[in-house]
Amino acid sequence: MSREELATRAGMSTAYLRQVEELGSGFDAAALERVAHVLGVSYEELASGSRQAPPGRGGPAARPVLQRLSEGECWKRLGTHGIGRVAHTAGTGEEAPVLVPVNFLVDGRTVVYRTDPAGAAAVAPGTKLAFETDFVDEERRLGWSVLVRGAAEPITDTAAAEALGRRPGGEPWAGGTRPLWIRVVPGEVSGRAIRSLPPAGDQDPEQPG
Amino acid sequence: MSREELATRAGMSTAYLRQVEELGSGFDAAALERVAHVLGVSYEELASGSRQAPPGRGGPAARPVLQRLSEGECWKRLGTHGIGRVAHTAGTGEEAPVLVPVNFLVDGRTVVYRTDPAGAAAVAPGTKLAFETDFVDEERRLGWSVLVRGAAEPITDTAAAEALGRRPGGEPWAGGTRPLWIRVVPGEVSGRAIRSLPPAGDQDPEQPG
Repeated sequence: MSREELATRAGMSTAYLRQVEELGSGFDAAALERVAHVLGVSYEELASGSRQAPPGRGGPAARPVLQRLSEGECWKRLGTHGIGRVAHTAGTGEEAPVLVPVNFLVDGRTVVYRTDPAGAAAVAPGTKLAFETDFVDEERRLGWSVLVRGAAEPITDTAAAEALGRRPGGEPWAGGTRPLWIRVVPGEVSGRAIRSLPPAGDQDPEQPG
Repeated sequence: MSREELATRAGMSTAYLRQVEELGSGFDAAALERVAHVLGVSYEELASGSRQAPPGRGGPAARPVLQRLSEGECWKRLGTHGIGRVAHTAGTGEEAPVLVPVNFLVDGRTVVYRTDPAGAAAVAPGTKLAFETDFVDEERRLGWSVLVRGAAEPITDTAAAEALGRRPGGEPWAGGTRPLWIRVVPGEVSGRAIRSLPPAGDQDPEQPG
């Protein structure tokens, strides 16, 4: 949201808002509280300047609709590498799944990730698992997600694992050696994107399904 | 990475890089290809200016280490609302989990999300499920994640559901009415943060566990 919009919604002038922003917690607690309320953050978070919040703090886009992505569009959005999440059923399947972030690479029409053999994302060969990544556009309140459901296949070829480690995105963000590379062999690839429809009354030839 | 660092790594001057950036795909394909290689993106992605890539495209921070978050720290980082993901075991538990993004609110010491009763995040009462959200700091190459594993409890009180819908973050990003509110009653809350250690040789009183 723009400074102007924030000021309007918090009931103050933009000049005043700028002063509030510059002076921070030493200034006017009541004004900051109104700003915090509009932004949907805690007073402490706003005063301490924490920007480490989860994504998606703003409200939705105007007239949002969810649309399916084709499989080709899913692979295109995954790109070459990034951070995603892996989920697998723990134990006997009576428990909640384990769901943790991983660095991933796209390798052909598979997703690979590296992990600690003793960590939460390490799974036995053949384990059914899900990989997800998404993009959240905070500014436009849009986004997409891609889900790859398949089976785990450890990469046992040392040379292949080393080659993956040298690719952009092959080094783990979380540090450590993380020598176990797991390939997610897709059974099913699906994706969804949020699109913002034009205002009511405009022609929209492409109706959502 | 800074423009200077990118220019150095792509083997060009910063002035030249600025020209490349301004002129885009009409300029010098070979130079753009070197920039694309350094950034770890495809030439097409760089030339078309796609900024819709998944998070975590840069390399890791210097000397990263993963540290556990206390439960209190986990709730603090979840804040009041945002976008996270829900995973649950599909069918008989022989299949890969389903893993999809949701809008979430923190309500007391529980996480609630709203969804389409016919959608992928709709689960029966008592279903074991996992909720995850994370923060990726592209600039500093740091981040954190929080995982809440528990059981689903639909919110059947209409007034309570309506009150949740009026809170900041209560409107679904993906549009639609999404009248089903599900509470994740935590069995286990865990979190991890990536910290960057000071350069080797510096004192580091707080050793990672």
